[in-house]
Amino acid sequence: MKKIAVVLAGNGVYDGAEIHEATLTLLAIAQKGASYQCFAPDINQAHVVNHITGEEMPETRNVLVEAARIARGNIKALSEYNAAEYDAIVFPGGFGAAKNLCTFAFDGPDCTVNEDVEKAIRSTAVAEKPVGALCISPALIAKVLGDVEVTIGQDQGTADAIETLGATHVKTTHGEIVVDEKYKVITTPCYMLDATIDQIALGANNVIDKILELA
Amino acid sequence: MKKIAVVLAGNGVYDGAEIHEATLTLLAIAQKGASYQCFAPDINQAHVVNHITGEEMPETRNVLVEAARIARGNIKALSEYNAAEYDAIVFPGGFGAAKNLCTFAFDGPDCTVNEDVEKAIRSTAVAEKPVGALCISPALIAKVLGDVEVTIGQDQGTADAIETLGATHVKTTHGEIVVDEKYKVITTPCYMLDATIDQIALGANNVIDKILELA
Repeated sequence: MKKIAVVLAGNGVYDGAEIHEATLTLLAIAQKGASYQCFAPDINQAHVVNHITGEEMPETRNVLVEAARIARGNIKALSEYNAAEYDAIVFPGGFGAAKNLCTFAFDGPDCTVNEDVEKAIRSTAVAEKPVGALCISPALIAKVLGDVEVTIGQDQGTADAIETLGATHVKTTHGEIVVDEKYKVITTPCYMLDATIDQIALGANNVIDKILELA
Repeated sequence: MKKIAVVLAGNGVYDGAEIHEATLTLLAIAQKGASYQCFAPDINQAHVVNHITGEEMPETRNVLVEAARIARGNIKALSEYNAAEYDAIVFPGGFGAAKNLCTFAFDGPDCTVNEDVEKAIRSTAVAEKPVGALCISPALIAKVLGDVEVTIGQDQGTADAIETLGATHVKTTHGEIVVDEKYKVITTPCYMLDATIDQIALGANNVIDKILELA
């Protein structure tokens, strides 16, 4: 049974992992007969956002502890990730991928990447195993790998920022994936487009299908 | 297009809505061509649980604000729910259903039910519209409606407590539903059994199929 690591950036679209993308990634893995292990960095979130008002809340939350809600408690610190033990790694989206895993949401192409996140992406790529990324997470992959072909959908500003990193951006619509054959990086836009939850399931399914094909 | 209200009890299995059950209920609704509106009571959670350690955290969180994370911000206070505007109502599970929507997790059959929750269930039943409930939520329905036929899977202690409320419990396994024809109540065990995420999708799909048939 193939085993896929899923890296969560918290729990909630505006400050963590996008919940539908994360859940439907796990579902796609299970439905295709593979297994998953969730990971998250053991760090504080960049901030906490009230998901009704969009305003910042005067709270501190830990990415690993909040991500554990999506993983039903079965989660490991990303520092424990060892590429040799997994067949692939996937990054669902949500602002957390661009706020907690790296600082792309705040700093654009000049962002910094969390050390454990960078190590996880790099060691998986070096091991020639697939790396999947949904929604805004392809920006993170572009920051780490550089000359990679990815998609975040249609948003020109984000696409430009990604190309500044040395990556190539390909426009896509709902459910479509872009496959970088060199790095085995598979990306899909998900909620970077104005999407419905069934379109998210489609994108997650297509990414996991391709990952299992290449793994 | 049929419109289904989905009531969330927070965001996380141990103190709120079970995230997979909630997300896969929304997915099933969208995939079958219906639409959904999320609701949650605007009250504080009974408590906040660290989902890694299982221990209580010294925090206060609001059920509506946390549930908004699953709903991507598109959520209404349950006090605004009007049965006339929807074709059915569904309650995903998670301990929040038995801690925040009612106190069944703490008080068993002697539990109290949140006023807006009780009104929502009762007004939907009076309007002869379907009420769906996953996981532990059937206990809540049994507390409000009394002589209803439901399932929470196999757990004898919970089944006994539900029968104390005047309800009839039917044992089921993964994905199976129980339909109470009188009240149009549809229930399925989900994570009340030791289940995998693809089995949760099966249960949510079967509940939503039956709801759309009866709505």
